[in-house]
Amino acid sequence: MLKELKREAYEANVALPRHGLINLTFGNASAIDRPSGVFAIKPSGVDYAVLRADDMVLVDLEGRKVEGALNPSSDTPTHRRLFLAFPGVGGVVHTHSSHAVAFAQAGRPIPILGTTHADYFNGDVPVTRRMTAEEIASAYEWETGNVIVERLAALDPADFPGVLVNRHGPFAWGPSVAKAVEAAVAIECVAHMALMSLQLAPALTPIEPELLAKHFKRKHGPGAYYGHGAAERLASNWRE
Amino acid sequence: MLKELKREAYEANVALPRHGLINLTFGNASAIDRPSGVFAIKPSGVDYAVLRADDMVLVDLEGRKVEGALNPSSDTPTHRRLFLAFPGVGGVVHTHSSHAVAFAQAGRPIPILGTTHADYFNGDVPVTRRMTAEEIASAYEWETGNVIVERLAALDPADFPGVLVNRHGPFAWGPSVAKAVEAAVAIECVAHMALMSLQLAPALTPIEPELLAKHFKRKHGPGAYYGHGAAERLASNWRE
Amino acid sequence: MLKELKREAYEANVALPRHGLINLTFGNASAIDRPSGVFAIKPSGVDYAVLRADDMVLVDLEGRKVEGALNPSSDTPTHRRLFLAFPGVGGVVHTHSSHAVAFAQAGRPIPILGTTHADYFNGDVPVTRRMTAEEIASAYEWETGNVIVERLAALDPADFPGVLVNRHGPFAWGPSVAKAVEAAVAIECVAHMALMSLQLAPALTPIEPELLAKHFKRKHGPGAYYGHGAAERLASNWRE
Amino acid sequence: MLKELKREAYEANVALPRHGLINLTFGNASAIDRPSGVFAIKPSGVDYAVLRADDMVLVDLEGRKVEGALNPSSDTPTHRRLFLAFPGVGGVVHTHSSHAVAFAQAGRPIPILGTTHADYFNGDVPVTRRMTAEEIASAYEWETGNVIVERLAALDPADFPGVLVNRHGPFAWGPSVAKAVEAAVAIECVAHMALMSLQLAPALTPIEPELLAKHFKRKHGPGAYYGHGAAERLASNWRE
Repeated sequence: MLKELKREAYEANVALPRHGLINLTFGNASAIDRPSGVFAIKPSGVDYAVLRADDMVLVDLEGRKVEGALNPSSDTPTHRRLFLAFPGVGGVVHTHSSHAVAFAQAGRPIPILGTTHADYFNGDVPVTRRMTAEEIASAYEWETGNVIVERLAALDPADFPGVLVNRHGPFAWGPSVAKAVEAAVAIECVAHMALMSLQLAPALTPIEPELLAKHFKRKHGPGAYYGHGAAERLASNWRE
Repeated sequence: MLKELKREAYEANVALPRHGLINLTFGNASAIDRPSGVFAIKPSGVDYAVLRADDMVLVDLEGRKVEGALNPSSDTPTHRRLFLAFPGVGGVVHTHSSHAVAFAQAGRPIPILGTTHADYFNGDVPVTRRMTAEEIASAYEWETGNVIVERLAALDPADFPGVLVNRHGPFAWGPSVAKAVEAAVAIECVAHMALMSLQLAPALTPIEPELLAKHFKRKHGPGAYYGHGAAERLASNWRE
Repeated sequence: MLKELKREAYEANVALPRHGLINLTFGNASAIDRPSGVFAIKPSGVDYAVLRADDMVLVDLEGRKVEGALNPSSDTPTHRRLFLAFPGVGGVVHTHSSHAVAFAQAGRPIPILGTTHADYFNGDVPVTRRMTAEEIASAYEWETGNVIVERLAALDPADFPGVLVNRHGPFAWGPSVAKAVEAAVAIECVAHMALMSLQLAPALTPIEPELLAKHFKRKHGPGAYYGHGAAERLASNWRE
Repeated sequence: MLKELKREAYEANVALPRHGLINLTFGNASAIDRPSGVFAIKPSGVDYAVLRADDMVLVDLEGRKVEGALNPSSDTPTHRRLFLAFPGVGGVVHTHSSHAVAFAQAGRPIPILGTTHADYFNGDVPVTRRMTAEEIASAYEWETGNVIVERLAALDPADFPGVLVNRHGPFAWGPSVAKAVEAAVAIECVAHMALMSLQLAPALTPIEPELLAKHFKRKHGPGAYYGHGAAERLASNWRE
């Protein structure tokens, strides 16, 4: 069932350690089939080295396991929350990539300091507020999704394809799970660059709005002219 | 004799450079067979590239070599001290991984600043006091074990699967030597993240007790719900 | 057409990720055939893993596509601007390498603090001024070339084989595209070293003029005595 | 002629990029045959990827090329100076490894902050004074050797198997060229650790003399008990 979806989710999951985003078994990726409302997600605590496409667990938007021999990732409720809140999103990725986590732990957004960042985000990579003791004690992973949704309330998830959960780490998304992986790579990359720029110039201000708009729109939306076609059209289309 | 134990110790030792925890020949791992009170440990000063499972040296809890053509690691008395003090421990790992050593040299514990850390440690990664001239001059490696045991006196080694020896570097342990390797990886990883978070926010405070408890208990103890079964049950069982 | 030129450009492009200079698809290299005034450049947004020599796009110095099934890199006008301004340049490379970007984002030149740097640059790696809203709104990539040319106005591009575009990242060049790749590697390397030296000694001053001259001239110009011949003669010749 | 010596020098040279100590073609290693007073050294400016054992150039202690189709490394006079000054040294290595260069550029010794460092150096990794304009203008590479020898005047090169040349980078040595490579790896490693420890504790003081003596003597001299024999006996023997 949904063989292709499981393959996409699998490819995204194994791409994470290849991009250096994963330590140990931290991290997971999921891909959703919108017509059926079913998503494929990594099983919990399985080593990436032995993971197979058939290990992907199918879960529906009510949180019921539809197929799979193993338990879905313990972060499944967070993925589900995001799929429900962001109808244009086709894939979600969670990592503990080191530089992004450094900002998340510090409770600071990743400031937009250059064009690398502006190619992916239409502003700072936002950071959520800290979770309350009540949120943590109740349905923790679901509430993790809730603080993300709350933080994105005034933002378009197509303009901001990721967020830092305070004290925790990055979640990223996109029109496809492959695009979500790309956003996760971008978050880690710009976190590293921003950390170093702040060492060189602690009072550095964000880039100029014109430069941000130019770079973001080069790759996103109807006027995009970067790239060779399909992938970018996809990126602009999911914004409807 | 104890072929399987030697294989486990061997696998753990060669995992160390693969995880980027080792520079030169620094570092060693050991696994104990509790019924016989014998542990297998890396021979001293052998290059990881040429190490074989049969090179592992068997030593008993009185420190006598039981089997092996080579000398056991010069750190053997530290391992022995830990096996004696912590009856639930099945494996011990020592590395000079760079970021963990940075904290050890600075004499600072690794502060618990996020959930990555809370998945493995029930608080800061502790640091020992400095050793005295007397301790250094006498049975140095045994005394290294003693300052670790002293530091862990009020802590459960299942809650704190590792420590930084002041001026030196990390020792990690677990119910199995594979779990000890995982703890050593986690220590290095959270040291790196903490170092960067402190650059971004020098006055950063530890995470909230609720968040710590939530994450630590997700993976440890009777209520654990992370992972796919066996490995995690093992982790919760050795706490008895 | 110009098969060898396309191969050179291809080799340079795939060398960029091998040298760790590339994140995602950021970065591009081009090589020019001076007699025909045609240069070969990477197509836009293609993954390095699937890139082939035949994918290189041929463009002339008026900016017209001469050959190629794909679109040329969106940065093509910057390359073209540099080929027009610097007649001795045979190849141009653009990357978003992390440490160089850190300086570019901070708007700081990379200060010349040691001989590694002096082997490649006859002074600081310069940084352009920020671009104006007008420049960004009009022919952005062409104007990017213009601020580079403006910054190099009083400098010899053979003495300064690269620059940081403010808020953006490094562009490098050389008598051949292979030499431009080498300059891009050098820029990233000295950026990393300078960042760390400034942490150790924030008020560090540039190296002495005698040491700079000695090292730069060891490898460049008529008195060069470093290297085994051809490559270095090439380097000295393109200066006439 | 001296086939085995050329092989040793070759193995040491190609080990440098494998240990991550080399950027571009920076760096070189040499091995000396004391009875004949001839040393084998890397040719100048050759890419490590295409280097062969037969490319090693043989040079005598008067600086005359004895054998070889290519030019010897431009740093040959520095190697020669060290072989003349330190009769116990069998091999010399020069790199531009990033963290060691960071200290060299800052003109700071690498402070001895932990046992990793004490396993290799009997104190700080020393840094030379800056070279004078006269020294730079005359026989530069020979004078580079001279400032090293001057800095080591009151130190035993067996206790301090390397140095940082101010504004430049590390030179390392040992009883064999393989041991010199090991010292070069150690210098880079402890530079990285020290840089981070100083970020965590800027006023950190050196380790206690007892701990330094303990660790250094564990691996060096007549009382050494680390390692499996031959290599370490060699290390202790070259001190007579």
